[in-house]
Amino acid sequence: MTLEYIHQLIRDVPDFPKPGIVFKDITPILEHGEAFGALTRHLAERVPTNVNKIVAIESRGFILGSAVAQHLRCGLVIVRKPGKLPRATLRESYDLEYGSDALEVHEDALRLGDRVVVMDDVLATGGTAAAAERLCERIGAQVLTSVFLMEIEALCGREKLKNPFVSLIRV
Amino acid sequence: MTLEYIHQLIRDVPDFPKPGIVFKDITPILEHGEAFGALTRHLAERVPTNVNKIVAIESRGFILGSAVAQHLRCGLVIVRKPGKLPRATLRESYDLEYGSDALEVHEDALRLGDRVVVMDDVLATGGTAAAAERLCERIGAQVLTSVFLMEIEALCGREKLKNPFVSLIRV
Repeated sequence: MTLEYIHQLIRDVPDFPKPGIVFKDITPILEHGEAFGALTRHLAERVPTNVNKIVAIESRGFILGSAVAQHLRCGLVIVRKPGKLPRATLRESYDLEYGSDALEVHEDALRLGDRVVVMDDVLATGGTAAAAERLCERIGAQVLTSVFLMEIEALCGREKLKNPFVSLIRV
Repeated sequence: MTLEYIHQLIRDVPDFPKPGIVFKDITPILEHGEAFGALTRHLAERVPTNVNKIVAIESRGFILGSAVAQHLRCGLVIVRKPGKLPRATLRESYDLEYGSDALEVHEDALRLGDRVVVMDDVLATGGTAAAAERLCERIGAQVLTSVFLMEIEALCGREKLKNPFVSLIRV
């Protein structure tokens, strides 16, 4: 199944979560077993073969990261909003349009020498993905690349990323 | 890899998210590629072969549901907290110890005749799982069974479920 077919399953939802934003709804891909399988293989093809852990960003990143980790038989590390992970964490803040937010990872989730790929559904402003990169590197892991289903080019998220990345679809 | 080995990777975290609660942290399973793969296969073995969609409850259910859907090559439907899904939804409320909460599903995520399995990491009080069952059935889907990694028997969640269910580990 081609990326073009998968792309046309994504629904644009205007004014969500707030006026002026066009939300990219990927749930129709997930609900379509064949499309979800094909998307997972397309994403997995972009992951370097020496990866040992996928790092997935809450919460749609969990869905894509889990499927890819399962496909590649590698481990999955979850990066969450503050207060969600139960044990000792590292935290990285990032700027939002107004104010800031943060991401956390368990401090023992990665080790020196881990080779990771950061995964999320959308690269928008790049704040969360860049924070995830910093979390991995503070622990001593090597970020091989980041992989996104979609990149919203107008928001220039690529400028915030320190390491290589790939997006399957650019809008 | 046996369920006993997978079970001993789960970490008990006392007093999280609040005093008196012992949180069951499954992240060490996910981070261990071989254990995560084995867990996915153990979960998938409990899914009837005539399933066509896995229904995953936010947010750790997303991880397990996605891996199992990928393994079985079936679709994935996500059930989320209110306000997270962008299009028209159905909502079901459930009681908490103090107050209530709710879950939503896109109203077009399931169809009459879909055969679904509800999936989450933990069956505790059963409120969320029972709400997910009701959402599926309101749309006309058949809930074949629910599958949980873990059941906390003392919380009697099984009494709230209308349909069959299975849990890999009982604590």
